[in-house]
Amino acid sequence: MKGKLTVVGTGPGHPDHMSPAAVQAIAEAGTVAGYRTYLDLLGPLLEGKRIISNGMRKETERCRAAIGEAREGASVALVSGGDPGVYGLAGLVLALLPEEERDSVRIIPGITSATACAALLGAPLIHDFAVISLSDLLTERGLIRRRLELAAEGDFVTVLYNPRGKNRGELLGETPGIFLKHRSGDTPVGIVMNAYRQEQSVRVVSLGELALAEDIHMGTTLIIGNSETFRSGNRMITPRGYGKRSDPPSPS
Amino acid sequence: MKGKLTVVGTGPGHPDHMSPAAVQAIAEAGTVAGYRTYLDLLGPLLEGKRIISNGMRKETERCRAAIGEAREGASVALVSGGDPGVYGLAGLVLALLPEEERDSVRIIPGITSATACAALLGAPLIHDFAVISLSDLLTERGLIRRRLELAAEGDFVTVLYNPRGKNRGELLGETPGIFLKHRSGDTPVGIVMNAYRQEQSVRVVSLGELALAEDIHMGTTLIIGNSETFRSGNRMITPRGYGKRSDPPSPS
Repeated sequence: MKGKLTVVGTGPGHPDHMSPAAVQAIAEAGTVAGYRTYLDLLGPLLEGKRIISNGMRKETERCRAAIGEAREGASVALVSGGDPGVYGLAGLVLALLPEEERDSVRIIPGITSATACAALLGAPLIHDFAVISLSDLLTERGLIRRRLELAAEGDFVTVLYNPRGKNRGELLGETPGIFLKHRSGDTPVGIVMNAYRQEQSVRVVSLGELALAEDIHMGTTLIIGNSETFRSGNRMITPRGYGKRSDPPSPS
Repeated sequence: MKGKLTVVGTGPGHPDHMSPAAVQAIAEAGTVAGYRTYLDLLGPLLEGKRIISNGMRKETERCRAAIGEAREGASVALVSGGDPGVYGLAGLVLALLPEEERDSVRIIPGITSATACAALLGAPLIHDFAVISLSDLLTERGLIRRRLELAAEGDFVTVLYNPRGKNRGELLGETPGIFLKHRSGDTPVGIVMNAYRQEQSVRVVSLGELALAEDIHMGTTLIIGNSETFRSGNRMITPRGYGKRSDPPSPS
């Protein structure tokens, strides 16, 4: 590879939460590739850059274009929202490259939706958790359903990405029933939309009420608490442990 | 609360990966509280600040001191390595506060070890994953063991935090056997130590070799691939999906 290819995580969507390493990688690049929605958040950082942008469904094409330019000698930053390694483009880019070119690709982590949304909700991820995407584009529904069941059975706090897509709501519809087999209907569930962006929406409902939340869309992140997670106003808190807790459950 | 209390995630350990929001919260604070190792990474940011610092086992005491100062009117930044909401101090602080004071606490997310280490390893977290701490200080070993079994059964990529502590190696010793019931001995396992710090160490071994890795300590992060994760040199890559994959497995 004559040039340079860096996969950059831009974080949850506001520059205040993008790392200096990410900003520098974009500033140093001559070409910036990415999904339009993520590029729009970068504003002035893109001035004077050559831009490779297209729609969400054209990811492979975009990665190939970025690879092609890097091979020709360009310094290319391929941006990915959140963390590029969590359902992001880091895997696709590396998979598209022959082994001998993979080591030259640099990957810059970002703050992923799970922790970005958790911070807005309080502290739901303080104990073991599972991250599951409800998108069945590349994964059989049976496996997604099985993972939901195992996460519920193991009392994992559970983060759901891509909860609903076009012509897709079946798995989301089944989710409350799957978790209600193992958790109380009072279990807090955090619903976060457009985190750190305009029209940010953060609320906590109960697992029993989740089926009524009809506004959940592809950009929503859901966090289902474990059996110890409790609600406090519009926040949810998961204790650090079970039983053997060293901290008094009652406030000091 | 007369003053201000902000829980700040400082990320994996290098300023290049700490968000501007985190830097600003520390700059604005008059008092900075935290575990000494994390404070040492902040260097000049701490000049002129009042510092509350003590050892790792004194977390509750440190949080109470931070709360006390904020109540008296100080602007306090309580720093937590990685993301404060992933096995971090965000939960403890909120649990120690009465409900009416909780909403005034601001939590600033950071890049957590799972994604920070994943970026160094390539792209292991591209599909659903589970995060499990092997620390049995506040959680019964039986539950931790059960979660390891369910994560293995569900083919979750699995991230292990706190794999070994003082007088504690039993669960780590059992881990390979638990996963080998469901995954091949060739499954890649990433071992990352001191990520983004001096003496950083990143390597990939096979699940079959994991039992031989005797240098794993409390600060090590382990990432066990799923059944589709493959090794490429010193990196590990998890495909975006199963079977229905839209991208050619062979490089372009």
